[in-house]
Amino acid sequence: MHLTQSLHRAVQQNPDRIATIFGDRVRTWRESADRIARLAGALRALGVAEGDRIALLAHNSDVFHEYMYAVWWTGGVVNPVNTRWSAREMVYSLQESDTRVLLVDDAFAPLVPEMRGLWDGIATVVHCGDGPAPEGMLSYEELIADHEPVEDARLGGDRLAGIFYTGGTTGFPKGVMLSHANILASSNSLVVSVQGSVRGGRTMYVAPMFHLAALGSWCTQTLVGGSHLFLPGFEPGAVLRGIVEQQPTSTLLVPAMIQMLVDHPSADEYDLSSIKRFSYGASPISETLLKRAMAVFPQAEFAQGYGMTEMAPGVASLAPEDHQHPRLLRAAGRAIAGVDVRVVDPEDNEVPRGTVGEIVARGDNAMLGYWNKPEETATALRGGWMHTGDAGYMDEDGYLYLVDRIKDMIVSGGENVYSAEVENALATYPAVATCAVIGVPDPDWGERVHAVVVLKLGHTATAEEIRAHCKTLIAGYKSPRSCDFVDAMPLSPAGKILKRDLRKPYWENTERSVN
Amino acid sequence: MHLTQSLHRAVQQNPDRIATIFGDRVRTWRESADRIARLAGALRALGVAEGDRIALLAHNSDVFHEYMYAVWWTGGVVNPVNTRWSAREMVYSLQESDTRVLLVDDAFAPLVPEMRGLWDGIATVVHCGDGPAPEGMLSYEELIADHEPVEDARLGGDRLAGIFYTGGTTGFPKGVMLSHANILASSNSLVVSVQGSVRGGRTMYVAPMFHLAALGSWCTQTLVGGSHLFLPGFEPGAVLRGIVEQQPTSTLLVPAMIQMLVDHPSADEYDLSSIKRFSYGASPISETLLKRAMAVFPQAEFAQGYGMTEMAPGVASLAPEDHQHPRLLRAAGRAIAGVDVRVVDPEDNEVPRGTVGEIVARGDNAMLGYWNKPEETATALRGGWMHTGDAGYMDEDGYLYLVDRIKDMIVSGGENVYSAEVENALATYPAVATCAVIGVPDPDWGERVHAVVVLKLGHTATAEEIRAHCKTLIAGYKSPRSCDFVDAMPLSPAGKILKRDLRKPYWENTERSVN
Repeated sequence: MHLTQSLHRAVQQNPDRIATIFGDRVRTWRESADRIARLAGALRALGVAEGDRIALLAHNSDVFHEYMYAVWWTGGVVNPVNTRWSAREMVYSLQESDTRVLLVDDAFAPLVPEMRGLWDGIATVVHCGDGPAPEGMLSYEELIADHEPVEDARLGGDRLAGIFYTGGTTGFPKGVMLSHANILASSNSLVVSVQGSVRGGRTMYVAPMFHLAALGSWCTQTLVGGSHLFLPGFEPGAVLRGIVEQQPTSTLLVPAMIQMLVDHPSADEYDLSSIKRFSYGASPISETLLKRAMAVFPQAEFAQGYGMTEMAPGVASLAPEDHQHPRLLRAAGRAIAGVDVRVVDPEDNEVPRGTVGEIVARGDNAMLGYWNKPEETATALRGGWMHTGDAGYMDEDGYLYLVDRIKDMIVSGGENVYSAEVENALATYPAVATCAVIGVPDPDWGERVHAVVVLKLGHTATAEEIRAHCKTLIAGYKSPRSCDFVDAMPLSPAGKILKRDLRKPYWENTERSVN
Repeated sequence: MHLTQSLHRAVQQNPDRIATIFGDRVRTWRESADRIARLAGALRALGVAEGDRIALLAHNSDVFHEYMYAVWWTGGVVNPVNTRWSAREMVYSLQESDTRVLLVDDAFAPLVPEMRGLWDGIATVVHCGDGPAPEGMLSYEELIADHEPVEDARLGGDRLAGIFYTGGTTGFPKGVMLSHANILASSNSLVVSVQGSVRGGRTMYVAPMFHLAALGSWCTQTLVGGSHLFLPGFEPGAVLRGIVEQQPTSTLLVPAMIQMLVDHPSADEYDLSSIKRFSYGASPISETLLKRAMAVFPQAEFAQGYGMTEMAPGVASLAPEDHQHPRLLRAAGRAIAGVDVRVVDPEDNEVPRGTVGEIVARGDNAMLGYWNKPEETATALRGGWMHTGDAGYMDEDGYLYLVDRIKDMIVSGGENVYSAEVENALATYPAVATCAVIGVPDPDWGERVHAVVVLKLGHTATAEEIRAHCKTLIAGYKSPRSCDFVDAMPLSPAGKILKRDLRKPYWENTERSVN
């Protein structure tokens, strides 16, 4: 099946219900599909052929919805660009994937000359912002107005649907190739697995749409016939106002966003009761933060998704009913329907329950591979299993507990220390707003457990107090031996703390970044 | 993905929860999977190779569950036999599909000598009833006890998973070939589409498991991690007692069963409140009956499935929320997720909403084809769409309404009866000159198989004699339950019997001409 099938079904069943909302712009499924069919006609007229890559560089809006379905309608391949990258990184991803058509909004249009200077292959630029198109760009609205709707190519199955660039461990981004079947398998499985009474309704997207977490949620929402509400990005005040004004019934946030939301000084002045389903994921959450979020959204069912771009993105989910059991709040969930999950040792043998190893997964949602990277593909998918790079264990009921990234494990004095465990302990200290734990070189211990901490406004703490607090909860060798206090964490586009950046100053004069 | 994947997932996540219940026999997922792996080992030891067909001829029990998963575990193909057929018909289906291994329970073991007399290809018979195996049969329990568990072949995707025989329009049953992907697509889509708060729990199967309606429900139930409760068959008193004693949370019934249940004199003496989801399908239901059922099960959400074996079986569903709108109670539902549905004219052009035509459907669940019948396959799947043979129309919101059948199929007690097959049997009776078989409304069966006969000059016959004759050739449920003797048939200019005219007097006071 093809990804536009759910769009056709929505038009057949709910032609006059709302498909997309962006600010004052509200469109029904019938209107939306008509625009998509015209945009697809425009892309064909521009010479876009089956399998061609088309990029969008923009903040969240209803254009994402139209762009993705229109590209699939033509039989093309989406390549949504990471908006937090530098122009160089963006161009790298366009050039590597030979993406010659680019859509940009107002925020990114000024970058285009620089990008074109770096690579002359960007043949067509479509401006999807407000007002007239800048010099050298076509107007998105004119293209839609000037072209007749075309027939949907309905190409799907194992054909390439999108290339999604993720940060590469080797310094260059890797293009994850996902087929129509991959994305549909994940979307279907998430609906099948995450039981609960809330589906459809109106989903609010604040996490960036170029990320598979938001994109997967969006696919799922069309599948169950709900409406899409786009906010341009994450700003805590705007999100709180958006909930009150637009009454979304569900949303998806990453932990760093949740932190900012619950820390917002006037969070308790807003009526947030329209939210009935609160999904979170993309990075591990501390128990403390999760409990605070559950208090701020008492009317909402909570559901956690654990996954990765390479799994389109679903691997496991912690269902609403699991959130009733305090002991499960530290879990990342259980394998979703249709996905096999195991914890293995370095030789890929399954380890006993409770033993830490690498989490591996397989299913119809596992990526086709990395674009132009057969070796990395073979390594990541060795033995038919996607190697997540996450270290964790599985309990007797199949719940996964993440303890760290395999590569982020700290070896201190010969002991393995998983930073997530230390971070969980640290987060319970009243003065701590956000924290990250890394290994830094140490003459005595090889690596030393080091904490980077953002304090809550008006609070103070010392490294000694923090170590003393952690020692009441975890072993002394795991408790931070040193501590930096910073104003803010370096974050990835998905809101993940960039430990690489935290580690950098400590490892600058060393040849490797483990000791 | 392969159909045993959900079994592995259930074992990983719920090893000690109940998988199957049959009478006093209760087994956990761990126990059940162990027996399945041993039964698969036994089948391999018996020489069953990848792709081999294995049949089960039995009333409902937990053996169905073990048999199906064990056959798939070996990479084999299931062929569950219609228990209402005559020995001739059963053997036809085994011989045509070259099925050489047969499992039988106590009820059908006595038929085996006759079946072996009709075809000497039934190489291995396994007795899965109580007590010692009859002469010439192996013991199911001994096979399980004597063999070690083997590894799951994990063969799935587009490979053949089962051959499901349905009544054939040409007088012979046709084997519908369904792949793992077909059955999984339908199961997934049904869960995605039928929203509501009830999933998992304990499903009670009283409709025969060889039918795709029950089989699809069973697949779905493993997928969401619920338990299976098998009743040997449908007997209204036993079903009512079963609900009270075993507290199932959901069940699937065909309208003829629902009729008998709500008509049962002491239905209101039972506490039926454990049933939270009441699914029905396989033939259209009258509004009157549906409203009565909703009154008998006031705590239950109602969901209708419309489908056919060739679609594995899902085509459309009427969701619980649709049952809140009286005007929708006559609908068969809307296309399930991932399935395209249209109403077309004889040239396969889509007709406007509200216009009657043939309902056609396509999706990843559409059958591979009919076993050994490339021409019938090509006709049924022409243009890439499965032609259901049902006439109906679609409203502006995508709801389907069935009005008649394109072919002359009769649905009696949830079983498909093709008039051509009955007419073939009838025509062999010496006194019959011409005959036609139609479906007429019946309070017990939904539709009743009714014959219209012109006798040969100077011959006599009674309805009883004609029924008795037919029963020597075809199943009892296919044999006419009533008969009209007429002097001449109404004929078209081309000399074809006008069944429409025969049907008319019986359907005059009803709103539609299928029940």
